[in-house]
Amino acid sequence: MADRFTGLELRSTVSSDARLTLTLAPVTLDPPGPDEVIVRVEATPINPSDLGLLLGPADVSTLAASGSADSPGLTAAIPPARLGAMKARLDQPMPVGNEGAGTVVAAGANVAGLLGKKVGMIGGAMYAEYRKIAARDCIPLPEGASAADGASMFVNPLTALAMVETLRMEGHKALVHTAAASNLGQMLNRICIADGVPLVNVVRNEAQAAILREIGAKHIVDSSAADFREKLTDAIAETGATLAFDAIGGGRLVNSILHAMEAAANRSATEYSRYGSSTFKQVYIYGALDLGPTELDRGYGFAWGVSGFLLTPFLMKLGMEGVLRLRARVAAELKTTFASHYTATISLAEALDPVIAAAYAKKATGEKYLIDPSR
Amino acid sequence: MADRFTGLELRSTVSSDARLTLTLAPVTLDPPGPDEVIVRVEATPINPSDLGLLLGPADVSTLAASGSADSPGLTAAIPPARLGAMKARLDQPMPVGNEGAGTVVAAGANVAGLLGKKVGMIGGAMYAEYRKIAARDCIPLPEGASAADGASMFVNPLTALAMVETLRMEGHKALVHTAAASNLGQMLNRICIADGVPLVNVVRNEAQAAILREIGAKHIVDSSAADFREKLTDAIAETGATLAFDAIGGGRLVNSILHAMEAAANRSATEYSRYGSSTFKQVYIYGALDLGPTELDRGYGFAWGVSGFLLTPFLMKLGMEGVLRLRARVAAELKTTFASHYTATISLAEALDPVIAAAYAKKATGEKYLIDPSR
Repeated sequence: MADRFTGLELRSTVSSDARLTLTLAPVTLDPPGPDEVIVRVEATPINPSDLGLLLGPADVSTLAASGSADSPGLTAAIPPARLGAMKARLDQPMPVGNEGAGTVVAAGANVAGLLGKKVGMIGGAMYAEYRKIAARDCIPLPEGASAADGASMFVNPLTALAMVETLRMEGHKALVHTAAASNLGQMLNRICIADGVPLVNVVRNEAQAAILREIGAKHIVDSSAADFREKLTDAIAETGATLAFDAIGGGRLVNSILHAMEAAANRSATEYSRYGSSTFKQVYIYGALDLGPTELDRGYGFAWGVSGFLLTPFLMKLGMEGVLRLRARVAAELKTTFASHYTATISLAEALDPVIAAAYAKKATGEKYLIDPSR
Repeated sequence: MADRFTGLELRSTVSSDARLTLTLAPVTLDPPGPDEVIVRVEATPINPSDLGLLLGPADVSTLAASGSADSPGLTAAIPPARLGAMKARLDQPMPVGNEGAGTVVAAGANVAGLLGKKVGMIGGAMYAEYRKIAARDCIPLPEGASAADGASMFVNPLTALAMVETLRMEGHKALVHTAAASNLGQMLNRICIADGVPLVNVVRNEAQAAILREIGAKHIVDSSAADFREKLTDAIAETGATLAFDAIGGGRLVNSILHAMEAAANRSATEYSRYGSSTFKQVYIYGALDLGPTELDRGYGFAWGVSGFLLTPFLMKLGMEGVLRLRARVAAELKTTFASHYTATISLAEALDPVIAAAYAKKATGEKYLIDPSR
């Protein structure tokens, strides 16, 4: 085994001349410290949360190959209006990839037992052939699990579990989820079925509804249907949902959910309250599939909240004991509850192919790409 | 002293034929129970929070006199689109008026000591010549205070104090307030100056800024100025405000405040975070001076929340001990910190005058009307 590992690492650069450029840079890693390992990355997903850093504010319709055959690149134009928000990352090549899995090829003295093991890991810079990382940010995969099985064992599983933890912490009894046929949404259904938490799934078409029916979802509401508001109110009234997690962000869906919750609360109201119902309604926005503004008409009184939601601060609030409890559940149910499905597996070089990049940039529900940097 | 008191009470009715009607109905009160008093109402304010019930969704440009000289009324058309939200109050004459003050003219056996005293009170139905009420919802006014001094001792003072309580409970160190030259905003400035809490006042014109400068406000930002965003960011950076209370609701002001808080947080950031700053930013919307939708472009990461805010649920959360502490402060500082100023004092009959109603319906900042039902 070599003392030093050299491999390619994907870098995303937003330059001052309003261009995005992706490149593959050779990186040589120093030997691991006593509590570190070096992992040969064999599977790393492209999550919606990775795309923000990977493609940033680029105009996807302008994606084009750049660089040379030896050193391929991908480039795209950035609309000048979006450049201001990028000030802090201008002209810095950023490594990308929140999570991944692979084989430990070198291990520090204190963690020598991990050598040769397959692990899942979180920490960024996973779109690379090799990743040096603290052993505490790795979880050994259970017997028989492949790197692909363990590639997405942090972001989606912990986010789905965080939703149910939030429900319990804040005293709600049922949950609404949008973009509900996603990989994350399917996990959430399996968790809620196992834990007996009523879940209202909001999808955007009949094909997505079919995916969820298949896995046993009980409440599925199609936002493209003419009677959406009524059906959503029915499902919320039946379940008592006063909490929602929304992956879409822009437009009026959050507003519709708050209206439906208020209408459900008022179905049992016996007298008029000028300030709306006293039932507190909370929506967390955890994604941005629609980058447009969120519009709230506030026609649901004053007992409501809309907040951004991000996994890391939530886990910090939950504390180490809680985090370890959630991680243990993910490892134990990796091939059942937390199984992910991928549209295609691509190499690092293919991630820089304009046609393939346009496909994964679409963030179509149920579609997810996996990079295997060892290809 | 008579056994029974008979007097007029203002009623607001939204009828199924899309009309609002205000009338004065004669009401005869039974003698007070052992813990109740009957108060001759001598001063009761028209707060923005009363106008929602009083004029409801009426088109103010259609206000017209109705009824007879003996029994005057006020009527207005309701745009049919707004009638749906009124279903729960249709065709029910609603009494109006959250708070008021007057003289106790009858008292139950357990509270006989209140007879003849001037009291402030909260509980609705204050736009009336007499109000029977539980003694626990009354506060005796301090020596030398008039009914007008005590008329507004609940809603605005407790709301202003609730803002500072919220700041402490949620761990913020400074506060932004909009519509800041209002009676409530002036109280809030006096509280914040006394308590050493930095306050950023957002006003809509120079005249309002002048009102606040006069009472010693340090941070005043005019939203009509060309450099509003920059000045707001400067004031937020200087004070460290991460909490705001907004009386306006509609439009982009809440969004501008969140942007300014994020920009202030990023001034001290040393590296790029794709998810925005980790500084949590919270805006409470407690009013609706602009009935349009709230637009949030979410260009400030994920560490933010926007919620409705209503006094009563807040006080329930604060608990009885806290409420008594706040009430005691209001009584002690009634003629200083919590002094209100009124544009005009009107009679119950004048409240039904179309010209006067159009004036108080405007909710102009710094303008507030007082009803004296004993006139």
